[in-house]
Amino acid sequence: MTSPPAVVRSAANPQYKALRQLAQDNTAWRKQGRVWLEGDHLARAAIARGVVPVLAVHAESCPRALRIPAPASLELADPLFNALSTLDSPARVGAVVAVPVTSALDPLAPTVVLDRVQDAGNVGSILRSAAAFGFRQVVALKGSASLWSPKVLRAGMGAHFALALHDGAEQQLLDALRAPLLATSSHQGGLLHEGKLPWPCAWLFGHEGQGVSPDLLARATLQVRIAQPGGEESLNVAAAAAICLHASGAAR
Amino acid sequence: MTSPPAVVRSAANPQYKALRQLAQDNTAWRKQGRVWLEGDHLARAAIARGVVPVLAVHAESCPRALRIPAPASLELADPLFNALSTLDSPARVGAVVAVPVTSALDPLAPTVVLDRVQDAGNVGSILRSAAAFGFRQVVALKGSASLWSPKVLRAGMGAHFALALHDGAEQQLLDALRAPLLATSSHQGGLLHEGKLPWPCAWLFGHEGQGVSPDLLARATLQVRIAQPGGEESLNVAAAAAICLHASGAAR
Repeated sequence: MTSPPAVVRSAANPQYKALRQLAQDNTAWRKQGRVWLEGDHLARAAIARGVVPVLAVHAESCPRALRIPAPASLELADPLFNALSTLDSPARVGAVVAVPVTSALDPLAPTVVLDRVQDAGNVGSILRSAAAFGFRQVVALKGSASLWSPKVLRAGMGAHFALALHDGAEQQLLDALRAPLLATSSHQGGLLHEGKLPWPCAWLFGHEGQGVSPDLLARATLQVRIAQPGGEESLNVAAAAAICLHASGAAR
Repeated sequence: MTSPPAVVRSAANPQYKALRQLAQDNTAWRKQGRVWLEGDHLARAAIARGVVPVLAVHAESCPRALRIPAPASLELADPLFNALSTLDSPARVGAVVAVPVTSALDPLAPTVVLDRVQDAGNVGSILRSAAAFGFRQVVALKGSASLWSPKVLRAGMGAHFALALHDGAEQQLLDALRAPLLATSSHQGGLLHEGKLPWPCAWLFGHEGQGVSPDLLARATLQVRIAQPGGEESLNVAAAAAICLHASGAAR
């Protein structure tokens, strides 16, 4: 019989140091091939989609009943757990999961393409909308916020594990897409809510300030306008994406 | 002939100190009755809607051609201007504008009601969608992010100046609304994209984790579901709001 593992109380513990990097460094997931999911909601959202955590992590004060099942676990003194957190109210549980290996692009899967979308909250929101409306893969072109960064993971609320994700992709990857490529325009094309949209399709969303780059926009097979009876307001990119993905996914 | 005003070089300058509070303290706008709009885009978005700035503020290095017209102006040494900024890349212009006096609630105006929506980015995005789709007033109930906080102003991209805003409102204010009150539901009502929605209407959006509070939801005259063929994902509240406001505003 083995005794239960000791509670880690030193910030110099190597396993703790690696975990802290995952939690706070936007690029550590690349080196380690894994990500840190802080909080019960996010960790269980991954597990509900069939992900088996590499490691469950608990604060010492976390009751047994709230702990996350995993093949291996790590118990941290509360101050160490809190020091991991980037949240206003730190959770007392979390999990480390392996970054899924990216399969080849599926030419006909409903797809979302991100062209230099910068804000982690926007990217996470778009992933949630994509998963909700039946899209299957997301291509984040180089210059977009990294899909696996801690802030995008948090904003994605588990949607990462319902999608095939291509992070930091080159534009040439899009050559393989066979679904029609759609983009919004302020002046071209019919109104989104009036026409019938193709399914499957791929949607293209661009940079918060500059929109989709012209060379990429030239690849679009269809442009549509979002009616704005209130005037010439611009929409937040994640808001525009929600409207487009709902229109083509939910109403198909 | 008066000489041009001197460039402010001291952080102890009283006008500068007041400005710095506006830029960095979420509650300073209440005390001062004004807000700080950083950057050319945001300041000009307000001016385009008829707002006359109380004060234009420029960094010393800002070329004349890029300066913002206003009855009064303040020129700051670049380090002082940069120290005001909460942006990754500080702008070199900005404007101080008075917070508009809130008129009485318009009972029949198309309205958005926010129930403890926490995230400034979400609130700003909802204001942009509201303005774009023809909504006229926004009621942020107590517990929501303050509409005039610097982060919400930034995320709103000028939409604040196209809407009548009721910040920090009590629930009783809603007693005056005569437009039908709509809310989303995960299990009740018809599908949003299939039915005809009333216009004018008022939409109710709630807390990122908990949704709309039950007592407020009891006020709703119509609940609708957003179809989610991808499964039981939850949507970001600003994404859900974009879909609802577009469905009722653009397609009316």
